[in-house]
Amino acid sequence: MPITANNPTRKTWIKTRAKTDFPIQNIPFGVFLTRDDIITIGTRIGDTAIDLGALHQLGYFEGIPLTDDIFLQDSLNDFISDGKKTWRLVRNRIAEIFDEENDRLKNNEEHRKIVLFTLEEIEMQLPVSVGDYTDFYSSIEHATNVGQMFRDPDNALLPNWLHMPVAYHGRSSSIIPSDIPVHRPQGQKLVNGEDQPIFGPSRLVDFELEMAFITTDANLLGEPIPIAEAEDYIFGLVLFNDWSARDIQKWEYVPLGPFLAKNFASSISPWIVTLDALEPYRTASPKPIKEQLPYLQYKGAKSFDINLEVAIKPENLKETVVSKSNFKHMYWNMSQQLAHHTINGCPVNSGDLMGSGTISGPTPDSYGSMLELSWRGEKPVQLKEGGSRKFIDDNDTVIIRGHCEKNGVRIGFGEVSTKLLPVYKK
Amino acid sequence: MPITANNPTRKTWIKTRAKTDFPIQNIPFGVFLTRDDIITIGTRIGDTAIDLGALHQLGYFEGIPLTDDIFLQDSLNDFISDGKKTWRLVRNRIAEIFDEENDRLKNNEEHRKIVLFTLEEIEMQLPVSVGDYTDFYSSIEHATNVGQMFRDPDNALLPNWLHMPVAYHGRSSSIIPSDIPVHRPQGQKLVNGEDQPIFGPSRLVDFELEMAFITTDANLLGEPIPIAEAEDYIFGLVLFNDWSARDIQKWEYVPLGPFLAKNFASSISPWIVTLDALEPYRTASPKPIKEQLPYLQYKGAKSFDINLEVAIKPENLKETVVSKSNFKHMYWNMSQQLAHHTINGCPVNSGDLMGSGTISGPTPDSYGSMLELSWRGEKPVQLKEGGSRKFIDDNDTVIIRGHCEKNGVRIGFGEVSTKLLPVYKK
Repeated sequence: MPITANNPTRKTWIKTRAKTDFPIQNIPFGVFLTRDDIITIGTRIGDTAIDLGALHQLGYFEGIPLTDDIFLQDSLNDFISDGKKTWRLVRNRIAEIFDEENDRLKNNEEHRKIVLFTLEEIEMQLPVSVGDYTDFYSSIEHATNVGQMFRDPDNALLPNWLHMPVAYHGRSSSIIPSDIPVHRPQGQKLVNGEDQPIFGPSRLVDFELEMAFITTDANLLGEPIPIAEAEDYIFGLVLFNDWSARDIQKWEYVPLGPFLAKNFASSISPWIVTLDALEPYRTASPKPIKEQLPYLQYKGAKSFDINLEVAIKPENLKETVVSKSNFKHMYWNMSQQLAHHTINGCPVNSGDLMGSGTISGPTPDSYGSMLELSWRGEKPVQLKEGGSRKFIDDNDTVIIRGHCEKNGVRIGFGEVSTKLLPVYKK
Repeated sequence: MPITANNPTRKTWIKTRAKTDFPIQNIPFGVFLTRDDIITIGTRIGDTAIDLGALHQLGYFEGIPLTDDIFLQDSLNDFISDGKKTWRLVRNRIAEIFDEENDRLKNNEEHRKIVLFTLEEIEMQLPVSVGDYTDFYSSIEHATNVGQMFRDPDNALLPNWLHMPVAYHGRSSSIIPSDIPVHRPQGQKLVNGEDQPIFGPSRLVDFELEMAFITTDANLLGEPIPIAEAEDYIFGLVLFNDWSARDIQKWEYVPLGPFLAKNFASSISPWIVTLDALEPYRTASPKPIKEQLPYLQYKGAKSFDINLEVAIKPENLKETVVSKSNFKHMYWNMSQQLAHHTINGCPVNSGDLMGSGTISGPTPDSYGSMLELSWRGEKPVQLKEGGSRKFIDDNDTVIIRGHCEKNGVRIGFGEVSTKLLPVYKK
């Protein structure tokens, strides 16, 4: 079925700014609370939010097999379970409804009043109920930087790294949408040269520039997903800030991996951009350095050219962009990640979230964490306003943005913006 | 509020065997499919399953604040969210209903027909929808054994181990109830002395003898749970077999911890035994070897004396008990685990599952995994029937059982029984 929603020449009757992340070619999915305190599934064109629950009730999705309440939910999980064919039918239909040539909703003021909202009238929620969250470690630049700092500069990559997309399980319960502030975590830390840990606030709170993909129901217990089919089970992507406390991490993570250093919060952008919308921005992944096992070998371009940036905004001051990276730098792509994740029969369900791992590029201004940008704090990062930073200060806001651009069409993710509050006090 | 359900002298009008795990003093909670294909929450006395949804509809819980459909659900999550006071009221009421002195249900044949089932008439389901699953590593004997085998016999414990209950996040989607078989996983393994991994079936599939506790909604993002309050948020415990593939684990787990070696399956016993029911079996945890940070210090007896055993049953042959251990061996108790888990503000919700980690005792016949029992395969474990085992063979069934016993009252968990099938073939 063709993705007619991606038609690059289509124009919409909704007023949009020229450089919006959300032209009619995007049509992302999210969940929001309306001015009437109703929770619904919606999409967005320009700065207009669209209530898909209301559109459906008014009959605009006739002919598409959808249950009556599919959009009147507090998460996208059930809609995502409906599968790729349904996502595509719905997205194609939305493009038609808002096409400037289509008068049906455009000329129906009563319906428009029910369906359309300004961004000020809505409050974005978590778009999915995350069953399981996995974080990969798939940027070779990031793995190399960390290995150089903490292990051996000459053998920065561990032996397994070039053979598999290394990953660990994260915490679903602390995944939060953009604009929810996070408290600086407390925990155990070991001061260099001491052998007794101390307790207190983390002094090395960091962001991690990541993206995450969201899956549909993919397999039953025991059944691997062949790599050629992996993309059938990917609904879309979000921006992802995997907050990290480096001092807590260093003391706790051997031998079972990061735990409290990560599970205090991970922030996502609220609009899921579908894999369909990203289709025009496909690009090749980096060439494998070592031969990969057959279950990880793939054909075609499986990565996506997505420009990413991170800004730090001290309270009441201007922001500074501290990193510019790109999703295409990932050494292991999403198809490889999903094939690896399920090779042992691990079941993947609707609403599962898979983080890419920190996306560092090849140059120092493209590193995806303060740990790398300030090189363990040795090179503070100068901000335009508010001094310099080795890590994140209390009341700083960290903002990640991302977009694709090609042939005059820009498909963006908006942003994930999170303020770091001081330590929690009862 | 007194736990009148624990009255050790109470007798029931339900026929029970003398040595049942489920006397009227137990009253565990589970979810089952009835002979009419209806899913409901239930409890069990002896070998009789009791439909709590039906009991509630018939008015037996009058006076207890419960929503009409609280037991007509496919998971216990909502009931668990109701909190400890409600759990206690319901358990006390069930004890009264089935007290041999109480004629109300006993003498109402019509009601009995609706409410009571034989075990053959029901099919046990997963009792909770697990939001997040965390696995601790809290047995000092297990950590020492593993450290001796794989690291340094003289410094078996890592530096952080005596300071915190080390843990990692596991996969919720592959948690399954007893009696669901598991396929031998495939994956990457590194043959000793080689530097290129090979792909194939795990040759070192192992069980891990664990218990797991299930929580209620405990805290908001950012808020730690004080250790003195931790038990308020623990609903109950189950037996837990954390299936592990040792060869996959060895190659993948540095630096981010176990992933595919564990997430192919973890099996639980289907009846959740409440913390209230275990109250008479409280016992002290091992004395700390090093002083613990204030947030991990507690008063009183926070562990429980629960006898555990593991049996291996080759297909069509008799089983052999290969290990006898006890939950009280855990160096870090559940209150410490929950306080640690939330000290950074990580939110804990209803239905979250926290594994103890492998529960090894001090003697070689009390080790909680084949890895330790066969000492990396150097000392095969002799079975009564079916030869010997270094690890688990295809078509072996692994059975974990557990119970407490004191003053003539036995509170048991039943069992978690899981057959290992050969590698999955499409």
